[in-house]
Amino acid sequence: MMKLSELSEKIGITWSGEDVEISGLHTLQEATSTEVSFFNDKKYLKDLSSTKAAAVLVAKEFAHYLPDSTIALITDEPYLKVALASKYFAHPIGTATESPKVGSGCDIDPSVSFGKGVVIGDNVTLMAGVYLGDNVQIGSGTLIYPNVTLYHHTIVGESCIIHAGTVLGSDGYGFAHTRSGEHVKIYQNGNTLIEDNVEIGANCVVDRAVFGTTYVRKGTKLDNLIQIAHNCDVGAHTLMASQVGLAGSTTTGRNVVMGGQSGTAGHLHIGDFVTIAGKSGVTKSLEGGKTYAGFPAIEHKLWLKLQAKIAMLIKKKAKKLK
Amino acid sequence: MMKLSELSEKIGITWSGEDVEISGLHTLQEATSTEVSFFNDKKYLKDLSSTKAAAVLVAKEFAHYLPDSTIALITDEPYLKVALASKYFAHPIGTATESPKVGSGCDIDPSVSFGKGVVIGDNVTLMAGVYLGDNVQIGSGTLIYPNVTLYHHTIVGESCIIHAGTVLGSDGYGFAHTRSGEHVKIYQNGNTLIEDNVEIGANCVVDRAVFGTTYVRKGTKLDNLIQIAHNCDVGAHTLMASQVGLAGSTTTGRNVVMGGQSGTAGHLHIGDFVTIAGKSGVTKSLEGGKTYAGFPAIEHKLWLKLQAKIAMLIKKKAKKLK
Amino acid sequence: MMKLSELSEKIGITWSGEDVEISGLHTLQEATSTEVSFFNDKKYLKDLSSTKAAAVLVAKEFAHYLPDSTIALITDEPYLKVALASKYFAHPIGTATESPKVGSGCDIDPSVSFGKGVVIGDNVTLMAGVYLGDNVQIGSGTLIYPNVTLYHHTIVGESCIIHAGTVLGSDGYGFAHTRSGEHVKIYQNGNTLIEDNVEIGANCVVDRAVFGTTYVRKGTKLDNLIQIAHNCDVGAHTLMASQVGLAGSTTTGRNVVMGGQSGTAGHLHIGDFVTIAGKSGVTKSLEGGKTYAGFPAIEHKLWLKLQAKIAMLIKKKAKKLK
Repeated sequence: MMKLSELSEKIGITWSGEDVEISGLHTLQEATSTEVSFFNDKKYLKDLSSTKAAAVLVAKEFAHYLPDSTIALITDEPYLKVALASKYFAHPIGTATESPKVGSGCDIDPSVSFGKGVVIGDNVTLMAGVYLGDNVQIGSGTLIYPNVTLYHHTIVGESCIIHAGTVLGSDGYGFAHTRSGEHVKIYQNGNTLIEDNVEIGANCVVDRAVFGTTYVRKGTKLDNLIQIAHNCDVGAHTLMASQVGLAGSTTTGRNVVMGGQSGTAGHLHIGDFVTIAGKSGVTKSLEGGKTYAGFPAIEHKLWLKLQAKIAMLIKKKAKKLK
Repeated sequence: MMKLSELSEKIGITWSGEDVEISGLHTLQEATSTEVSFFNDKKYLKDLSSTKAAAVLVAKEFAHYLPDSTIALITDEPYLKVALASKYFAHPIGTATESPKVGSGCDIDPSVSFGKGVVIGDNVTLMAGVYLGDNVQIGSGTLIYPNVTLYHHTIVGESCIIHAGTVLGSDGYGFAHTRSGEHVKIYQNGNTLIEDNVEIGANCVVDRAVFGTTYVRKGTKLDNLIQIAHNCDVGAHTLMASQVGLAGSTTTGRNVVMGGQSGTAGHLHIGDFVTIAGKSGVTKSLEGGKTYAGFPAIEHKLWLKLQAKIAMLIKKKAKKLK
Repeated sequence: MMKLSELSEKIGITWSGEDVEISGLHTLQEATSTEVSFFNDKKYLKDLSSTKAAAVLVAKEFAHYLPDSTIALITDEPYLKVALASKYFAHPIGTATESPKVGSGCDIDPSVSFGKGVVIGDNVTLMAGVYLGDNVQIGSGTLIYPNVTLYHHTIVGESCIIHAGTVLGSDGYGFAHTRSGEHVKIYQNGNTLIEDNVEIGANCVVDRAVFGTTYVRKGTKLDNLIQIAHNCDVGAHTLMASQVGLAGSTTTGRNVVMGGQSGTAGHLHIGDFVTIAGKSGVTKSLEGGKTYAGFPAIEHKLWLKLQAKIAMLIKKKAKKLK
């Protein structure tokens, strides 16, 4: 907690009104009366007038949309100021350790490292070189293979399997940019939550959310070397083959299937029961129940027709080559 | 070992015949008289009548193809039953340790972790944070960099170099699916074998086989962040640049060259001395001695013609843009 | 240091002239009077006559281009001989350790492993399972997350953040080839240098240079699972999204932006302020200040026109399908 007067001084903002305690940052929609938010994109104009935030970083011309109860923090660079502010709410990173709370029947290698406040269920196996950061929670029956790293506040459900070298809860890739082209870190103060019965392959990365939570829902199975960016929500019973990448804030329905080396842009929604062929690049949200392929990804049956046409072209060329 | 009567009760199958000891699961072709197999794909119909398996999970209509010596385990869902059965033959995962058998002249960091029954040759170097699971074997003259994880029963030949963060022998990506869309793990009871003089880059993954062995043959050199799926067989003296992915059961001949970020579908064969350009996606088996490019990958000389045609199209467009 | 007479005997070369002490290998342009170089590509013919190398591995027909002060090491296979020679100048790899020189205010986990001659600045945080090889240097204020591996002679600047599982300074992917198709390792005797204010995501790899240095310049931010090959030079304030790959010796200007799963061929230059769309494959050097997309990557505005044309084709097909 920090007084708004203190925070605003640190980030170079002046304002008027009654001082208030600030607990963190969040989006306009999600911010509570002890949080600061920001307005950076006209797409969210309607959220501006209905926000419950204590204060909002906003350009002068939009400040009048704010409700009376919300303090306007006037700035030309709201996003940059969020980045500067985010640092003051970041969880401190260090090597301090504390004995975890451990259930019954666990098998924990002596080389496992714990932060503070770790809670482990029953019958959990933690292999050599695993690191569990502050306030990590591991559900009963979960098995974590060697050299896995879980950043602070990561939550893993019951009966999960996490394969070697995987990293859960690392910082999402978020930066604001100065006018001279430097990048200012937006501290990623959200977390990562893996639901029950999830299996995650080796050397994957699931980033923590900037605000809120990155989800991998129950029963989902990820292959190796997969990237799940910050604020994604991977739906239940989803299958992703190796080297798939989901960009930030993309969500999937249930039982989605993604082939190897496919990827999506950010801020999309992939509908329930969608299948995406290997190597596809998804640039738009996809309607459920269908199969897609190619880059930019289109319906698979159209892609096949297109390929047939190209194949014909090639045949003609092949003849000429002879 | 487990009695067939016990196993079948666990997975909900009734059958008649004399009871027999079962040691594991395998394909129709490879199963021995102490193994259970399954029939799930008409492609393998001829293997059904010639199998040596003790018992086979099979739909009623195909059971009559089995030899008299093989017990039919009748089920509508043979693949799901295999998944359920696989669990009972899985190697137990835990932190139990035992001093390895070590040759002469080795340099082993005190932080290295060993399972039980590990055997290490002469002049082996094992750096900090390496984990060698149960029954791992490391050949003489091999160097393993920090934070590498070798799952149980992985075998690495002589004079190999394994770079940091790489994972060998992790579970292949195999699941059977219930009618309600849940995924049931097929325990991967095979292993991974790396032959002599192989170099594997940093943060790669070579999965263990579901049955049998995943191979990387002698003299092969892999760059970083590469995925080799279960039951692949990477031929001798093959070169793969960074971020290549091979899907399950794909095999390559000798001296194959794959460019960065290229990948293949599963169950293909890439012929000897094939070169595959970077970013290619291989969807069919490839004849040896040729160069391929694009997605779907075609012969490189045709791909060049196609690109020339596209370039012409673009030039026209470029003129119009001016 | 090794006498040229000794080295040439080891790699099977005869020559005449006065013996000289050799400290290592380098390119024709960069080699000093105690280094051996090689001539393997006519592109570098002008460097042959101006080299300052003590000796050069060169085919007979080109030997007369060398300056008088440089000894000609005549061979039909200069590149293979370089590979054989490189081994004798490789830094010895082992588990020998030594207390690092540590600044004030550092927070270092007891499980961190150090080679010899490590130097750490002030207020550095090193989390569990980190490995710092011989002669590694870490600048003040830098934070290294768990299970990161830094190979010998890697240098990380001030105020950097290196996320979990990342590997810096691993061997570049370099091999010479024998006539029978075997690959001979070119020992990577250069290093990796990360400048100040760089953030590198989880499970990335930045390879060391074969000669000289692989650079990631100040203020650059890399996402997860990224590959930077040997001898790359990633310009200042560059942004790369997840799963990007840069092949060997490619350099970028400042403030380059690369989308997820994009990649480049080797030996290219990407100009200042270039933006490359996700999934692009760059096959040629790119002029600064523009946006590119596709594979092979072309200017984005042309790519959009091309996609519009393809979309029209697809629409026609879609009608026919109905």
